[in-house]
Amino acid sequence: MSTTSTQIDDLVAAAVAAGDEWAGYDPAGRARVLHGVADALDAVGDTLVPIAQRETNLPEGRLRGELKRTTFQLRLLADVAAAGEHLDVRVDHADADWPMGAPRPDLRRTCVPLGPVVVWGASNFPFAFSVAGGDTASALAAGCPVIYKAHRGHPDLSDATAAIVVDALAAAGAPAGLFSVIHTQDEGRAALTHPAVKAGAFTGGIPGGRALFDLAQSRPEPIPFYGELGSVNPVFVTAAAAAARGQEIVDGFVASFTMGQGQFCTKPGLFLVPAGSGLAAKLGAAVLPEGHRLLNPGIADGHHESREELAARDDVSVLAGGGGEVDPPSATLLATAAADLLAHFEEIFVECFGPTAVVVEYDDEAQLLDVARALDGQLTATLAAQDDDAIVGPLANILARKAGRLLWNQWPTGVSVTYAQQHGGPYPASTASGTTSVGTAALTRFVRPVAWQGFPQQLLPGELRDDQTVPAPRRIDGVLQAGPGQ
Amino acid sequence: MSTTSTQIDDLVAAAVAAGDEWAGYDPAGRARVLHGVADALDAVGDTLVPIAQRETNLPEGRLRGELKRTTFQLRLLADVAAAGEHLDVRVDHADADWPMGAPRPDLRRTCVPLGPVVVWGASNFPFAFSVAGGDTASALAAGCPVIYKAHRGHPDLSDATAAIVVDALAAAGAPAGLFSVIHTQDEGRAALTHPAVKAGAFTGGIPGGRALFDLAQSRPEPIPFYGELGSVNPVFVTAAAAAARGQEIVDGFVASFTMGQGQFCTKPGLFLVPAGSGLAAKLGAAVLPEGHRLLNPGIADGHHESREELAARDDVSVLAGGGGEVDPPSATLLATAAADLLAHFEEIFVECFGPTAVVVEYDDEAQLLDVARALDGQLTATLAAQDDDAIVGPLANILARKAGRLLWNQWPTGVSVTYAQQHGGPYPASTASGTTSVGTAALTRFVRPVAWQGFPQQLLPGELRDDQTVPAPRRIDGVLQAGPGQ
Repeated sequence: MSTTSTQIDDLVAAAVAAGDEWAGYDPAGRARVLHGVADALDAVGDTLVPIAQRETNLPEGRLRGELKRTTFQLRLLADVAAAGEHLDVRVDHADADWPMGAPRPDLRRTCVPLGPVVVWGASNFPFAFSVAGGDTASALAAGCPVIYKAHRGHPDLSDATAAIVVDALAAAGAPAGLFSVIHTQDEGRAALTHPAVKAGAFTGGIPGGRALFDLAQSRPEPIPFYGELGSVNPVFVTAAAAAARGQEIVDGFVASFTMGQGQFCTKPGLFLVPAGSGLAAKLGAAVLPEGHRLLNPGIADGHHESREELAARDDVSVLAGGGGEVDPPSATLLATAAADLLAHFEEIFVECFGPTAVVVEYDDEAQLLDVARALDGQLTATLAAQDDDAIVGPLANILARKAGRLLWNQWPTGVSVTYAQQHGGPYPASTASGTTSVGTAALTRFVRPVAWQGFPQQLLPGELRDDQTVPAPRRIDGVLQAGPGQ
Repeated sequence: MSTTSTQIDDLVAAAVAAGDEWAGYDPAGRARVLHGVADALDAVGDTLVPIAQRETNLPEGRLRGELKRTTFQLRLLADVAAAGEHLDVRVDHADADWPMGAPRPDLRRTCVPLGPVVVWGASNFPFAFSVAGGDTASALAAGCPVIYKAHRGHPDLSDATAAIVVDALAAAGAPAGLFSVIHTQDEGRAALTHPAVKAGAFTGGIPGGRALFDLAQSRPEPIPFYGELGSVNPVFVTAAAAAARGQEIVDGFVASFTMGQGQFCTKPGLFLVPAGSGLAAKLGAAVLPEGHRLLNPGIADGHHESREELAARDDVSVLAGGGGEVDPPSATLLATAAADLLAHFEEIFVECFGPTAVVVEYDDEAQLLDVARALDGQLTATLAAQDDDAIVGPLANILARKAGRLLWNQWPTGVSVTYAQQHGGPYPASTASGTTSVGTAALTRFVRPVAWQGFPQQLLPGELRDDQTVPAPRRIDGVLQAGPGQ
């Protein structure tokens, strides 16, 4: 057995033991522990942020904001889990006259934690999608131990953050082994294929994410793999909107596609504008912000390569920027025509991670419907439109089948952590389109339902008892009721 | 292109077109259509049941009961879907002071149908898990078109039932192509790998189910595959229960494992009893019911082979029955010791589909915990125990991690269709342990969430509007409220 396997066996064994204890915690107790972790992280921003700056090239203000978002998210997920919102509790009392044709037994259903989860950190959110980010927070709050695979782009920050998390968990009395960190790809694969590991969560690119998804699905026991892999996030500008608010829309788009040097999974990478509206000219004249260095040399090379490949096409021209610098790159707008995009969709409609986007001029609004129909799965799709535009009904209808989030005269970057957020979508946006990796519904990824039939009260989970001792909304005999946590 | 591919292309194209229309139906309108289908099926029991008898060897009474269950299920799923119970609707109003550190936009989240679903029928429920069974009913009620792969065990019944379904859909004005039938394995695979198909649902054995799961996951765009593959359904009898109610427990077990000639996925296939309690002797003396022929020759051969392979083992003896007949087989109880089971778990703990079960005598109740820990994923696990048994707390705790449904002094056969039912479990019980194939939660398999950000009221789905025009319970700014459908 290799050293990696032995180390992973030990980590997983510790996670299993810790998970057994953690799953048995009172939900409010789990929330108290996670609030402790959030407090500890808030207290060390001055230590962590400089490490993050050094390792990611991201500016201090952005990183401080991201840390705040991260600890907010941790507390919100902990509180929603403690209120039992993710358990979908159902209580059916016995019914001798159930019209199915046979008496209905007493059946009560809640959810239990899946068990150990391997979480891969993302390069572009060194706090919010990393050590103590949304996937870790969801899994822990749902009652699962976490083995965290650090992103190689910020190893020191990962270790420093993990040390705070581990200390805070210990200080709050959480079981040892509940959270651990690994660094290499081999360790990540060994963990994902360990029989006692029950789920994976990932944010990153398509090739790496697909390889891990395939690994998880080809196990003797396949397990859920929640991967958020890629998205172009098209923006559809109607003729009426371009006429009414052209400059405002252009300014909003430029700010959004260059935000964070375009290193967001929700960056709007395709911008469809009416030919002859003057929007392309406005974009050509736009002052593009000077950006900082990208997250790491691999991302800078990848951006450069994608941009140059697109720019070299006969049917694509450079509209603005595009000086060819590798790192920091200048923000770049490329241009093509809708007919060309539709004729070569798979070559032109590609994610170019970094500050580059493609402006597409269309001649006829019907082409917007054609582009929408040609889309693969997207995290977001955006409409810049007027309320009385005739095209928006049919267009939104198609886009709802392609994307996880539709925006109306807003921009997809800046993903709010809320109850109604949906960050996911059909593949390749997500490998599990029925789930979200941001927002409180993210909790449901790490539990599965179990029904208890005919059980005595004292052996039921608290949320299923007649004298409900654990808060949760409950559907009783088919009728939904708010729980004591409400 | 092969004939199969062309035919499947046409069926899928028709399903996509029909699905676009069906997804746009008012939910109450979909429910009305499905009630029409249920009524039509109820009206033709005298025609369908004799065909089912001929093709499956199941007795008339059972088949009439199953048809009743099937139409009840269709109406229940239609009604629950019309009430929006499966949509997990969330409405977040804009909040400038959202403590995340950035203003919260107006975000509203509901679910949309996935699109065309391929449903595989099961051999052992020619109505309830076949043409108009739970998977078809869930998919249609959730707004998805269905391409139904008939089981080769009852092709005539499948065609006759499908004709009723298609006619009833047409009579109710549903779009043509919403439901279609295919028969061959090649057609099934072609449908599952068609780019426009968005999910699969299957009930059957592990090899076939796993092959289809692998096919669905290896598509360029992987899609959800809801497979219910296999389960042994162990029963744990405590010493105290054996002493208090030995004969009653034996009688209940015999009735359950022989019900329907043991051809249920929930058949209790392993029965753990205390050595020296006299239960094994009672089982040896039990009068096992004479059974009818099995569903088809393939199942009869499979049962015979599994039974003979187990019976030939040195550590397994024949306790009752086991005359060796292939079809109809006599009910058979095999016996082994807990130590032998634990020493050769994977060889002895196998599903033997038909009227055979393994009785396991244990010396020490701690062995029950060892067996529970050794289990792979199960649909059910049953406790025959006394309220004050010390072992049941720890035992149930382990079993909740292994099974989808736990039973207390009841029997796993006879799966009630209710709000709280959970029919699924960790692999291989299910390929998607977070879901159920029976009960109203089955609807959630065929939808995925979409969020609308900042949209004008008139472009929102009815359940997201301020003047909510479509019923659904809603979580508004994090607080759950019963919808107008309640």
